[in-house]
Amino acid sequence: MVTAVDAQREAVCALHAELVRYGLVVWTAGNVSGRVPGHDLFVVKPSGVSYDVLTPDSLVVCDLDGDLVDGPWAGGDLRPSSDTAAHAHVYRHMPHVGGVVHTHSTYASAWAAAGLPVPCALTAMADEFGGEIPLGPFARIGDDSIGRAVVATLDGHRSPAVILRNHGVFSIGRDAASAVKAAVMCEDVARTTHLATALGPVAPLPQDDVDALFDRYQNVYGQQPAHQDQGASA
Amino acid sequence: MVTAVDAQREAVCALHAELVRYGLVVWTAGNVSGRVPGHDLFVVKPSGVSYDVLTPDSLVVCDLDGDLVDGPWAGGDLRPSSDTAAHAHVYRHMPHVGGVVHTHSTYASAWAAAGLPVPCALTAMADEFGGEIPLGPFARIGDDSIGRAVVATLDGHRSPAVILRNHGVFSIGRDAASAVKAAVMCEDVARTTHLATALGPVAPLPQDDVDALFDRYQNVYGQQPAHQDQGASA
Amino acid sequence: MVTAVDAQREAVCALHAELVRYGLVVWTAGNVSGRVPGHDLFVVKPSGVSYDVLTPDSLVVCDLDGDLVDGPWAGGDLRPSSDTAAHAHVYRHMPHVGGVVHTHSTYASAWAAAGLPVPCALTAMADEFGGEIPLGPFARIGDDSIGRAVVATLDGHRSPAVILRNHGVFSIGRDAASAVKAAVMCEDVARTTHLATALGPVAPLPQDDVDALFDRYQNVYGQQPAHQDQGASA
Amino acid sequence: MVTAVDAQREAVCALHAELVRYGLVVWTAGNVSGRVPGHDLFVVKPSGVSYDVLTPDSLVVCDLDGDLVDGPWAGGDLRPSSDTAAHAHVYRHMPHVGGVVHTHSTYASAWAAAGLPVPCALTAMADEFGGEIPLGPFARIGDDSIGRAVVATLDGHRSPAVILRNHGVFSIGRDAASAVKAAVMCEDVARTTHLATALGPVAPLPQDDVDALFDRYQNVYGQQPAHQDQGASA
Repeated sequence: MVTAVDAQREAVCALHAELVRYGLVVWTAGNVSGRVPGHDLFVVKPSGVSYDVLTPDSLVVCDLDGDLVDGPWAGGDLRPSSDTAAHAHVYRHMPHVGGVVHTHSTYASAWAAAGLPVPCALTAMADEFGGEIPLGPFARIGDDSIGRAVVATLDGHRSPAVILRNHGVFSIGRDAASAVKAAVMCEDVARTTHLATALGPVAPLPQDDVDALFDRYQNVYGQQPAHQDQGASA
Repeated sequence: MVTAVDAQREAVCALHAELVRYGLVVWTAGNVSGRVPGHDLFVVKPSGVSYDVLTPDSLVVCDLDGDLVDGPWAGGDLRPSSDTAAHAHVYRHMPHVGGVVHTHSTYASAWAAAGLPVPCALTAMADEFGGEIPLGPFARIGDDSIGRAVVATLDGHRSPAVILRNHGVFSIGRDAASAVKAAVMCEDVARTTHLATALGPVAPLPQDDVDALFDRYQNVYGQQPAHQDQGASA
Repeated sequence: MVTAVDAQREAVCALHAELVRYGLVVWTAGNVSGRVPGHDLFVVKPSGVSYDVLTPDSLVVCDLDGDLVDGPWAGGDLRPSSDTAAHAHVYRHMPHVGGVVHTHSTYASAWAAAGLPVPCALTAMADEFGGEIPLGPFARIGDDSIGRAVVATLDGHRSPAVILRNHGVFSIGRDAASAVKAAVMCEDVARTTHLATALGPVAPLPQDDVDALFDRYQNVYGQQPAHQDQGASA
Repeated sequence: MVTAVDAQREAVCALHAELVRYGLVVWTAGNVSGRVPGHDLFVVKPSGVSYDVLTPDSLVVCDLDGDLVDGPWAGGDLRPSSDTAAHAHVYRHMPHVGGVVHTHSTYASAWAAAGLPVPCALTAMADEFGGEIPLGPFARIGDDSIGRAVVATLDGHRSPAVILRNHGVFSIGRDAASAVKAAVMCEDVARTTHLATALGPVAPLPQDDVDALFDRYQNVYGQQPAHQDQGASA
């Protein structure tokens, strides 16, 4: 059991560096978590710790209520991310989800502050999100309101990302890497679509094109699992 | 024959790093290919593989139908980029083209999502593109529709780049390095022109100025071949 | 006494690198200072010196009138930042302040040039600033006019940052690291809010939500002091 | 004499790296030159050569007609930048100028494409430019039209930078480092002012404030020469 937790610590730690690399976070404002396969546990960032000093050992292990786990995997005395309740709520209610990411990435958060979903006018967006990136309601931190808003918006939706009004992005995936990819692509298409709207009206793609692109991308793109690298259209 | 393929593998691998350096791609969303001189072959990125782990050996060799080539140059069992059919179509129909690049670079794709060509209001754009960067039609991935859209728009046009509606950029060149340069300059002038339109109406350059600049740049700029470095105006 | 000064030199020197890392400064246009605990002194950047060559030894030690201090902590013959009078004014009039930062960061300065405060439409902004980022008056450099403008705007305000009309940002904190964090977050929320206004009208968050978020963030977020890392919501 | 040329080769080579660092150039589109003190010569970038491979030895030495100089300083067989005629024209007609920079930096070129000078609404701009950054006329490359446009606009103007309509930026300085600083600050204030105009009308600073700021900055800012580092307000 230590092995599965340790592997997830390594993976989740490395994925935080991707948030930095793609410019999705400043200071400590963003976090990744990953479910521990075969256990009712997930690994998440400690609260307020800089990405520079994040190590696998400093990550926090929580149960699906978001409570710190005792024992050898507990990661010392650091407190989990203040967004942990939201992560836990998603894991409890979406059993197929193996990873959750939260950021305040710039362009996605701009759509959130304007109270608008991101319309689907790009093939890359149809591929990854299968339509618009939906807008979820405003929810205060402190209980499971944010988690409920995420689940209510994403459950049954093709999109692996939601922008919460006046807040930022939550994304999900079959594992933490897929959730990070969704967060990266969300910011990318939010940016391109924002800039497109400055040039004139942007018409969404027709639904049948979106459906065909989404279906193909989910089933044909990339390598067989041995070579798979969570890639976007390339 | 191995030598020509190997040299192209090295070159195309290195050029993918330029896409990253100039911020034209996120995750795995962009690809470069290069025709193998003297052979009906081209080298292209494998699908869904991260730029971080791309090596010359991991690149895929295809024939001009876009099919994987057997034998010592086949590069293992990786599948080629999902955009390979478009690259192959260009090589089949534009024999002077030695390199093809596809990206979803941000500003060029914003013009694509707005359904507008990039007007020519900058000397650097007249130099490199000889006029506007044309808008090609929307085309679904999956057959040679995208390749046909690229060829139909660029054939007989001065511009080495086309933006496909609701999609992104394809650029061409006499070799892969020239096609990458065209992709870099396309994003650069798309960005500057986008920002200019936010300040007020942008009048295109008069046609005789465009013609004079394009003619001079194509014939005078840079060093003799031994020192040539695919440079923009400098 | 040398120890406290030396420690602050080290800290303030390292924090200038954060201004560069987060893109808040170009050339030499920005500075950090830190009060020396237990002494009526502060450490500040020398004027016109590149961040590349800044060393702890090159920082300047001033008294609370902004005058260079003689003796072993004086740091050679470099002149202090031309903004030193403003830093000194803040330290004299805001005894709880242990660090001051000044930048011309892009988006915050854009709000300043437009003569507008940054409205509070993001949870991250409620967390860190407790409401809008206020606009202070224009003030000329050369006497303590800028310092007075900063103190008059921030005194009694929740926000640790002020944007001065037609100028840039001053931020404060309990120590220099906190003031740098405020400068980083100021630019981040100024950017996101700027981009949001391009999409449509941006409604500020209701006051009771702002109050609840601010109160929680100031009191619950992060680790106990031993692990605290001046973090934003994570 | 070799010494003065060699020193200028070193300085001009290093300054090209600053163009890259501050994001003022893509590919090879930008160049720096520096007058050789005590000689009617200047050192300039070779045409179309990548910044990555630029070495002091690869720089080109020209006389004030822009013609390649023979002899031990001639730098091999590389051709000078295609903008060399413009640099030479400036050196011939502005004897106090020791350095010239040309870029197509993004925001400054956006103002150029829109045909507008950059209004002076920032203290940093009053400091460095003493007012607006003027718009010069469109001029075709190929003779000394561009050089004449630069000199006609900058001669007698406080601003060390001019934006040429539909083209880009030329900046000057007492030496090459000062000209590079002017190019960096030009892009910085062009960007901030561009973003400010998106928020609402931007009123220029009153002339007496501009005059006072410019006078102070030119005479008080920074260190004595031994420590001077061409700094902006800090």
